[in-house]
Amino acid sequence: MQVDHVLVDARIATMAPDGDPYGSVADGAAAAVAIAGDRIAWVGPMADLPTGLGAARRTGLDGRWITPGLIDCHTHLVHGGDRAHEFELRLEGASYEELARAGGGILSTVRATRAASEADLLASALPRLDGLIAEGATTVEIKSGYGLSVADEVKMLRVARELGRVRPVTTRTTLLAAHALPPEFADDPEGYIDLCAGPILDAVAAEGLADAVDAFCDRIGFTAAQTARVFTAARARGLAIKLHAEQLSDQGGAALAAGMGALSADHLEYLDEAGAIAMARAGTVAVLLPGAFYFIRETRLPPVDLLRRLGVPIAISTDLNPGSSPLNSPLLAMNMACTLFRLTPAEALAGMTRHAATALGMGGDTGTIAPGRRADLAIWSIERPAELAYRIGFNPLYRRIWGGK
Amino acid sequence: MQVDHVLVDARIATMAPDGDPYGSVADGAAAAVAIAGDRIAWVGPMADLPTGLGAARRTGLDGRWITPGLIDCHTHLVHGGDRAHEFELRLEGASYEELARAGGGILSTVRATRAASEADLLASALPRLDGLIAEGATTVEIKSGYGLSVADEVKMLRVARELGRVRPVTTRTTLLAAHALPPEFADDPEGYIDLCAGPILDAVAAEGLADAVDAFCDRIGFTAAQTARVFTAARARGLAIKLHAEQLSDQGGAALAAGMGALSADHLEYLDEAGAIAMARAGTVAVLLPGAFYFIRETRLPPVDLLRRLGVPIAISTDLNPGSSPLNSPLLAMNMACTLFRLTPAEALAGMTRHAATALGMGGDTGTIAPGRRADLAIWSIERPAELAYRIGFNPLYRRIWGGK
Ligand SMILES: [Zn+2]
Ligand SMILES: [Zn+2]
Repeated sequence: MQVDHVLVDARIATMAPDGDPYGSVADGAAAAVAIAGDRIAWVGPMADLPTGLGAARRTGLDGRWITPGLIDCHTHLVHGGDRAHEFELRLEGASYEELARAGGGILSTVRATRAASEADLLASALPRLDGLIAEGATTVEIKSGYGLSVADEVKMLRVARELGRVRPVTTRTTLLAAHALPPEFADDPEGYIDLCAGPILDAVAAEGLADAVDAFCDRIGFTAAQTARVFTAARARGLAIKLHAEQLSDQGGAALAAGMGALSADHLEYLDEAGAIAMARAGTVAVLLPGAFYFIRETRLPPVDLLRRLGVPIAISTDLNPGSSPLNSPLLAMNMACTLFRLTPAEALAGMTRHAATALGMGGDTGTIAPGRRADLAIWSIERPAELAYRIGFNPLYRRIWGGK
Repeated sequence: MQVDHVLVDARIATMAPDGDPYGSVADGAAAAVAIAGDRIAWVGPMADLPTGLGAARRTGLDGRWITPGLIDCHTHLVHGGDRAHEFELRLEGASYEELARAGGGILSTVRATRAASEADLLASALPRLDGLIAEGATTVEIKSGYGLSVADEVKMLRVARELGRVRPVTTRTTLLAAHALPPEFADDPEGYIDLCAGPILDAVAAEGLADAVDAFCDRIGFTAAQTARVFTAARARGLAIKLHAEQLSDQGGAALAAGMGALSADHLEYLDEAGAIAMARAGTVAVLLPGAFYFIRETRLPPVDLLRRLGVPIAISTDLNPGSSPLNSPLLAMNMACTLFRLTPAEALAGMTRHAATALGMGGDTGTIAPGRRADLAIWSIERPAELAYRIGFNPLYRRIWGGK
């Protein structure tokens, strides 16, 4: 076996769906992973290490835990400005009118994003992306959705693509033009959906800027019928689809998305049984976003037991965004998933690795530690993997390996 | 004026109790702080900078914000083991009996702490302390309370003192022998209080290991009468007192502590008006601990409006501990204080600076940026101080200055 690098004296949570909930390699602190190029060549107990690895570099890990690199499968990390002032005004007791006069809400982020250059957006996004990488993220999804015009959605996605070139991290980009109604279409939502499903999609597809198309289907977003129009146009161009669904009310968005073959339906506090059954049938991943639940002080919990019972895969993500989830920490998202949604630590870790990969259509490539998968690994100074979800605001990352490097 | 270092082109939140809620220096990004030795010599608009500072080093800060260094005034960061396994078992649905059989609860931390050497405890505490320092903490309080015997309480406090010698941070140590009933006194709480108020206190005082004495007054802790015995003994030895009070039930602990001149009463979810009035009269600080509220999923909120109305100073802290608040982030404690307790960002920052200093009896020395105070500063890459409490799991610290260095 030809390999470049062998990590030895490790404990390994492969997160492969067999064995214990972590897919742990037995033999305690005496397990190993062999890497060839950017791929995992072998994983198992050191006692079974193939022979003939003599030339490969060896790194001893003193019993540290190796997990798949973390995958943050739902972020809005490219955006102009922030909403700290709105946060402060609200806590100071400002009325709705005062907030509106101060220019709060999603349209303030749209204004700031439109006013920003690509260089501005890149510079402001980098520290956020670096924060994710510092906690072991090896794949990050990035949505548009604060441009809401052809030029500004294209601008956001170019920046998202550029982030993957300037940092050692895999990025997946998602067109979310149908995020909010821009002011110039305030009286014409159908006209804006025409723009989303036509010119914006064409421009984005022409430059190959998006891996998927998303929409916000809710009372304060778009209807199921409008969402379906956007999805039909996306599917016609061969793009994957995913949906912000059932966050604030039940619009049947998850069932619609699942019926059209969506990779994921995200949020889901108001998901009903019919929606969950449709997701289970279609293999659509439930992406839970506890940061938004926490920040907007939602009280309705997503139906975790129902999802478990039906075997719907559950992913966890930061939803990193300035308005409803300025959460920059995948580990903290895992803690919130356990503390607030009562996931187990193993479910939270699977939600940030294996199922997050599936939510991005990358389940065959990353998210578990298995031969042939990308060598995207996180190495942690911990005694048991539950520590990743247990601690709050503590980063035990020892080292990260992305594509074997 | 003889100074060593001048920080210029900054925005400054002095947190002094005048002007706007941040005690901001006017003139926007053109403010300065001058440092002489370990003290602040001058602070104000650059236009007013005293002349004759020629020899001093100058550092330009490009408009970054300077605040007082953060003060985490309530931690249990020295302890053996962790409780990640208990966290996991609980989320997997383990019954109370199963948890007890697995050795959960505070006594598992007592066992691990007793089994640990001073070197073990130091090594395990350092990454936690480093996490606080990395977010701009310049002063950290550290409690004992998992030893529960003369030798083990002394051991914990020696480690707490040592932490302040091996890291550039001011530490304050607190004897919390009356934290839980050790197994060898299971049938004799009064006997254990005798030990706390006598031999443990004597041993700790003999080595000068504690700056204050604390107790846990609650249904599952000690009674008000037992607390009073410990406090009387502490006061007789000239030690300051503070109290874990009204966390799970109203025992009148805050009023008792205030009546005896306590620096602070901490937690306070079940504080009533009489207790708050007693605190206001005595100048006892209310230390709110939103991490514990979050982690144990408490639903009863501390009476923030009552505290405001009565003018009780409100401090915020992590309560960093393995059982009920494994929260290692002062910034996140500030976000939780805003998101969960509805403090304003300015109140949260005052709670981690000025009022936290008062809760440690150090109000004259640190916690604000003013001439004569220690030059304990945090410099942040932010556009407005509200960002410190707004973001979740993001650290914008640019540089920390501790005692002028
Ligand atoms: Zn989102
Ligand atoms: Zn405590």
